[in-house]
Amino acid sequence: MSDSLRQYLESHRQRILDELFAFLRIPSVSTLPEHRTDVYKAAGFVAESLQAAGMDRVEVIETEGHPLVYGEWLRAPDKPTVLCYGHYDVQPPDPLEEWTSPPFEPVIRDGKIYARGASDDKGQMYMHIKAVEALRAIHGSLPVNVKFLIEGEEEIGGASIRRYLHDHREQLRADAALVSDTELFAPGIPTLCTGLRGLLYAEIEAEGASHDLHSGTYGGAAPNALFGLVQLLAEAKSPDGVIQLPGVYDDVEVPSEEERESWRQLPFDEEVFRQEIGAPALVGEEGFHVLERLWARPTFEVHGIAGGFTGPGSKTVIPARATAKVSLRLVPRQDPEKVRQALERFVAERTPKGIRTQVRVTAASPAVLIDRRHPAIQIAAQVLGELFGRPTVFTRAGGSVPIVGQITQELGIPVVMMGFGLPDDCLHAPNEKFNVENLFLGIEAVARFLERYGAGR
Amino acid sequence: MSDSLRQYLESHRQRILDELFAFLRIPSVSTLPEHRTDVYKAAGFVAESLQAAGMDRVEVIETEGHPLVYGEWLRAPDKPTVLCYGHYDVQPPDPLEEWTSPPFEPVIRDGKIYARGASDDKGQMYMHIKAVEALRAIHGSLPVNVKFLIEGEEEIGGASIRRYLHDHREQLRADAALVSDTELFAPGIPTLCTGLRGLLYAEIEAEGASHDLHSGTYGGAAPNALFGLVQLLAEAKSPDGVIQLPGVYDDVEVPSEEERESWRQLPFDEEVFRQEIGAPALVGEEGFHVLERLWARPTFEVHGIAGGFTGPGSKTVIPARATAKVSLRLVPRQDPEKVRQALERFVAERTPKGIRTQVRVTAASPAVLIDRRHPAIQIAAQVLGELFGRPTVFTRAGGSVPIVGQITQELGIPVVMMGFGLPDDCLHAPNEKFNVENLFLGIEAVARFLERYGAGR
Repeated sequence: MSDSLRQYLESHRQRILDELFAFLRIPSVSTLPEHRTDVYKAAGFVAESLQAAGMDRVEVIETEGHPLVYGEWLRAPDKPTVLCYGHYDVQPPDPLEEWTSPPFEPVIRDGKIYARGASDDKGQMYMHIKAVEALRAIHGSLPVNVKFLIEGEEEIGGASIRRYLHDHREQLRADAALVSDTELFAPGIPTLCTGLRGLLYAEIEAEGASHDLHSGTYGGAAPNALFGLVQLLAEAKSPDGVIQLPGVYDDVEVPSEEERESWRQLPFDEEVFRQEIGAPALVGEEGFHVLERLWARPTFEVHGIAGGFTGPGSKTVIPARATAKVSLRLVPRQDPEKVRQALERFVAERTPKGIRTQVRVTAASPAVLIDRRHPAIQIAAQVLGELFGRPTVFTRAGGSVPIVGQITQELGIPVVMMGFGLPDDCLHAPNEKFNVENLFLGIEAVARFLERYGAGR
Repeated sequence: MSDSLRQYLESHRQRILDELFAFLRIPSVSTLPEHRTDVYKAAGFVAESLQAAGMDRVEVIETEGHPLVYGEWLRAPDKPTVLCYGHYDVQPPDPLEEWTSPPFEPVIRDGKIYARGASDDKGQMYMHIKAVEALRAIHGSLPVNVKFLIEGEEEIGGASIRRYLHDHREQLRADAALVSDTELFAPGIPTLCTGLRGLLYAEIEAEGASHDLHSGTYGGAAPNALFGLVQLLAEAKSPDGVIQLPGVYDDVEVPSEEERESWRQLPFDEEVFRQEIGAPALVGEEGFHVLERLWARPTFEVHGIAGGFTGPGSKTVIPARATAKVSLRLVPRQDPEKVRQALERFVAERTPKGIRTQVRVTAASPAVLIDRRHPAIQIAAQVLGELFGRPTVFTRAGGSVPIVGQITQELGIPVVMMGFGLPDDCLHAPNEKFNVENLFLGIEAVARFLERYGAGR
């Protein structure tokens, strides 16, 4: 069976690349209004690809934003159903001058496809479609039922799919979901991502005097909203990185010793990591491995502080108002609502004299932890292990993929996060790339996973 | 003589206001490169006004920065010479949306001129020119020799006038200087300012990673330059307002008990002051009267912090770089150079792990203390006392007028700081204003001072 799959992929290799290149040539930048037509064109391309792959029903679904593309094949009534998710929109390509070749003219150099969206997520999403196409071509049918839901707003918040998923839980019912928007831990390491951190994003606004004051005339007696905010923020985290919000660690789930040990076994070098980010030193909680700090510990970050004067030159103003954008990354068992309350309590209790503060939470989503014992995860791990010739590692990711959290919550199913990107793919940056080898590895892995999951082992 | 002066001011009242309004309409914001032409225009306006006031020689002096305007009338060889200083540049007007009327479209509401620069310093500087114009119109000559030196860089550090004054001490020789860049202690209180705080202005730049990082992927282990800067700044001042720079209080001169007592006698109400600035509470060092905190104690303020993301919406960035604008107000006997070293040492010693910092001092000037027993000060005090019908009070100002310090040092003469602004003039803030009544009171006071100083009593 694998042989016919490999044969199929070999003999259709050039066509698959040509098609993907045509897809990558569409500049479907979702955040830029001038690319609205391109976004539609990309949605149409996805719909045609699903049709060509043999879906029985394909629909381009209009939304308040960019269209969703839905496709289904449900002719295996006694088999499980897999919901395949992906996105056809991409990040803006700027700064353009830093691209070696133009972002929307894909080329292969050194075995890598260079183009915006090559890895995130057109190339990876296309793996699902080509896997299904190959299986149907070989067998005349599919080993599982499949539903595709592909969005065009992942890079701008995903509001439309969030609403659609909430309103169409029955239509989207499945046994497992498949998402390939993650990466391998390193080249050649079979990787399943089983955890994502959540996010609480907030603005903290501070007010001192009712209007900006001159620091000569009033300095020494008038409160400075910006400095008050600085004092408050500085107390949110100890010098060694421990968050000071009351009770914020109460529900933090410590990974099992087995999981921790598996992370320590990963090919990870702190010094290489430090050099990659170009920092004088790494920071964070003592006693935790860097990967644990990134994957399984909550964080508190300040992203920006507005207020006062930051233009060229100098202005001796005592700012009346200042606002900080902050966020906490959340880990399994932390309740975003409890963390919101902890943040509000911290701010209320620690606001310095002379300052009034206010917290506005603008986004909140819990962490996601996928049960590794679920058959879909077990089978995916086996398939990847066989394909790579070494045991699959279970990693987590420090970022949030809101749709994954929503699928687990609203559909109550596990998400197989099986991505074939690499850490050096330059997502959201110039010279984004996707290794050709990983593209075909990914198609094969997805096809084998569907076969084995359909066979129940 | 006073009668003819009052008559003159009455009959020329509208013209004087019209001229000042034309001056205020020029957006001569010295710190913003896009206003360079406006700054030149304002310099030209000053030169023409001096010409019209009867100066024998008027010159617009090119500098490396914005031009100086010089004017002189020296036909009273046996009389003292007064050097009149002012500045024609203004602070940026932002935040624009908080102005009731546009900052560069002066209007009178409730007897007050609202415009950027109305009080600081275009309106006050214009009083000198109009006083001289009036005296010359009435008497055909002046009671003293006068030299005007007006700059366009007061709000950005005054580098050009500093060099010019240093290089032209002979040309600028005088017996006393007159500066109206201060204010009355309260409406109706004749006030001479005899002390100014100095200023050390600096930028503190922090660098973490070599490029901005995603807080999901890197949060928990990567240093955040903005947060590191926040931690550093928060340590610069204790919660009760005591500056933590090493040795910063070593040379601070405590005012005499007599001076302190005279300040306690001033009509000052902490609660009224608090309400005026619209703050929930006053802050600062325990055990010091508010006026002493404002006039005779050093301060540390943060004016703005650039770095990261402050636009609408949210971005989960770990900023690679952040810069804070900070300043210290200095008091008599503090050496700016020693304070600079203390700031640099503090930053070097307290920079958090993972961050590199750098301090750039952009301005430094010592505090000033004027001898109240000098004849020019005594005569000014008498004139003001007579005009207001009550004894003149000697105050200090918390702000810096670097040129005052330089005049006292390089020319060895006292500076009569006779300003007619009011504490609620909103200098450097939205809705800056100058009371029309004070404008004309100021013109009369300056004219009378010149007459009496020329007469030697």
